[in-house]
Amino acid sequence: MDHERIAVLAHEKFPDRAKTALGVLRYGDQDVRAVLDRDRAGDRVSDHVAEVSDAPIVDSFGDAHAAADGELDALYIGIAPIGGGFDESWRADVEAAIEAGCDVVSGLHYFLNEDEELAALADEHGVDLVDVRKPDDDLTVASGASGDVDADVVLTVGTDCSVGKMTASLEIVAAARERGIDAAFVPTGQTGIMIAGWGNPIDRVVSDFAAGAVEEMLVEAGDDHDLLVVEGQGSIVHPAYSAVTCGILHGSMADGLVLCHAAGREAVHGYESFDLPPLADYVDLYEDLAAPVHETSVVAGALNTKDVADDAAAADAVTDFGDEVGVPAADPVRDGAARIVDGIVDAGLGGE
Amino acid sequence: MDHERIAVLAHEKFPDRAKTALGVLRYGDQDVRAVLDRDRAGDRVSDHVAEVSDAPIVDSFGDAHAAADGELDALYIGIAPIGGGFDESWRADVEAAIEAGCDVVSGLHYFLNEDEELAALADEHGVDLVDVRKPDDDLTVASGASGDVDADVVLTVGTDCSVGKMTASLEIVAAARERGIDAAFVPTGQTGIMIAGWGNPIDRVVSDFAAGAVEEMLVEAGDDHDLLVVEGQGSIVHPAYSAVTCGILHGSMADGLVLCHAAGREAVHGYESFDLPPLADYVDLYEDLAAPVHETSVVAGALNTKDVADDAAAADAVTDFGDEVGVPAADPVRDGAARIVDGIVDAGLGGE
Repeated sequence: MDHERIAVLAHEKFPDRAKTALGVLRYGDQDVRAVLDRDRAGDRVSDHVAEVSDAPIVDSFGDAHAAADGELDALYIGIAPIGGGFDESWRADVEAAIEAGCDVVSGLHYFLNEDEELAALADEHGVDLVDVRKPDDDLTVASGASGDVDADVVLTVGTDCSVGKMTASLEIVAAARERGIDAAFVPTGQTGIMIAGWGNPIDRVVSDFAAGAVEEMLVEAGDDHDLLVVEGQGSIVHPAYSAVTCGILHGSMADGLVLCHAAGREAVHGYESFDLPPLADYVDLYEDLAAPVHETSVVAGALNTKDVADDAAAADAVTDFGDEVGVPAADPVRDGAARIVDGIVDAGLGGE
Repeated sequence: MDHERIAVLAHEKFPDRAKTALGVLRYGDQDVRAVLDRDRAGDRVSDHVAEVSDAPIVDSFGDAHAAADGELDALYIGIAPIGGGFDESWRADVEAAIEAGCDVVSGLHYFLNEDEELAALADEHGVDLVDVRKPDDDLTVASGASGDVDADVVLTVGTDCSVGKMTASLEIVAAARERGIDAAFVPTGQTGIMIAGWGNPIDRVVSDFAAGAVEEMLVEAGDDHDLLVVEGQGSIVHPAYSAVTCGILHGSMADGLVLCHAAGREAVHGYESFDLPPLADYVDLYEDLAAPVHETSVVAGALNTKDVADDAAAADAVTDFGDEVGVPAADPVRDGAARIVDGIVDAGLGGE
C-alpha cells in the first residue's frame, strides 16, 4: 500500500466513533483530502478535530473526488461497525471509487475481495481491494530471528485492551524522530496497518504463526532503522486475547517494554468480573515471561488520561503511575511522548 | 466423527514414525481392524507394539477391507510427513476407501476437502472427508464461561514441545476412570482429535479465538463429566508457539495444572539456542500468569523418560523431578498415571 492522496469514509460516525479515520488523520503519512460523512457534509475536519490537517467533509465519493481535483488514489474505510460487517449504504461510494480508478482499503472482518460484485468491478478497473485484516498466506512459525535484527526493539504492552497502545506507539515514534532517532512503527492491528501502509494483523493470524508474523515484520524493517516500536495488543492476562499478546511478546524479542494503562481502569474492559492485577504484577509478568526467550524490562510507562477531568488531575495520575511502575511516564496524547523516550534512551535503546 | 471400525494408513512408517497411528491404537475408542504399511505387510501389530489390540498389517485398503470382512467405516491417515503434505502414493488407498463407502480422516496440513478429485469422489459416494486441522468456521472470542462449567478442569502444561502432554493427558483420564472418576479428555491438537473423535485444533485457530475455541469445548463437555483433562500444547516460553499455550491456559481456566517435562531436555526442541529455564520458574510462570484469570496451581508432574536407559534410572529421574517441582510425579508411560491422579485428587479435584 502506498497511497498519497486519499479520502476516508466515516459516514454518520465522524469523529467520535471513527477511530480508524482519526488515526489516519493524526498519524498517517497519507494526505487526507476529504472525509465522507453524510451527516456532517459541508463541515470541515477542523470544525471537529484539532491539530490535524484540514479537509472538507463531504456527502459522497463523487464530492470527495471533485474536492480533490480528481487526484485521489484511494478510498479508506475509516469506521468499523460492531461485528465488522459491510454497511450496504457504503456500496455506492465504494463502487464510485473503484470506477474512478482508486484502490479501496478496508480493515473490516467482511473482506471486500470476497464480495463478487466489488471484486469484479475492481478487476475491470485495474485497482486493488486491500483487506488489511486478511493475513498473508505465506506466514509461518517463528525461527527466533527477531533477536538478530540490528535495530533496538521496543514493544508497548498493556494492562488491558483499549488503553492506547497504538497511540502510544505512534507518539513514541514521533517523539523519537524529533530527538533524531531513526524510529519506525511496526503495526500489528488493522488501524495501525491502515496508518502505516504495511503490517500483519496478528489477531487474525493462526496462533501457531502469531510470533512468526511479528518476526517477519521485524526482519523486514530491522536493518533500515535504529529503533522499532512494535504496537502491542490486548494484555497478557486478558481472558480472551492473551494469546495475541503472548505471541507478540515472544515474537518481537523486545529489548524494552512500555507499559500502557488507562487511568481509573480496574476491571477488564467488557469482562468486568475480571479485576486487573496490581501494576507491579504486570511488570513482573511481562518481564518474567519474556526473559527465557529474550531478557527485557519495562523502561517507561504510558498512561491514557482521557477520562480524567482536567490537566492537573491528569498530571497527578501520571506522576502516581510512574512512581508505582518505577519508570518515566507520560500521557502521550496530553503530554507527548518525550518522557517515554527518555526512559527508552536511558535504557540504552535507540542509539546507532 | 463417530467411527467404530477403522483402518489406519501408516505406509513405510509403522510403528516408530507413525505417532498418530500409535496414538489411535493405544488410546482411541475405535476398533482398529488393520494397519496399512506396505513395508511390513504380512506382519501383525503385535509383532511391533505391545499392549494394544492386535490387527493385521496389510499392503492396501483393499486388503484391509477384506481383512475386516468389509465392515470398515473409516480410513484414518496415521502418519504426517514433514510439512504435512499428502503423499501421492496414498491416493489409491484413499480412493479405494471412499469407493467402499468409508469416511477418510486426516490431520494433514493438506486438506482432503480441497483436493478436487477426492472431494468429487467423496461427494459421489456420500462419505465425509474429515480434515481435523481445519477449525470450525463458527469459533469466536472467549467470554470467560470456562469458569462456570460444573466439571473440574486439569490442564497439562509443558516445559517444551514434544514432552508428552497428549500422552500424559490420556493416561490421566485412564487412571482417573480406574479410580471411578468420570473423566474425559479434551483434545487440542490433530492427533488428540483423531483419537477422541472431536475437538478444536487450537494451533490452527486465529489467535484472537484461541482461548474461545478451548472455552467452546469445555462448555460442550463440562456438564457431562466430573473431571476434564485438557491437552496442553507447546510451552509458555516457547519462541514460536507460546501464543497457543497462553490461549489454552487462559481459555481453559484450569483448576489444576500437571507440569510435563522430558528427562534430560535442556534446550528448546528445534531451537537449541534457547535454554529451558529451571523447573521452579515454570511453576511460577504458569501459576502467576493464570491467576488473574483463574487461580490455579501445579498439582502433579509427568516426566517423559523414554530417553532414559533403564527403569531404575527412570525411577530416580521421576523422584528428582517430583522433588524439584514439589508434587506427586510419574512417567505416565512407564508407571501409569495413578500417582498423577493422586496429586489431582489431593488438590480436591475430580470429586462429584
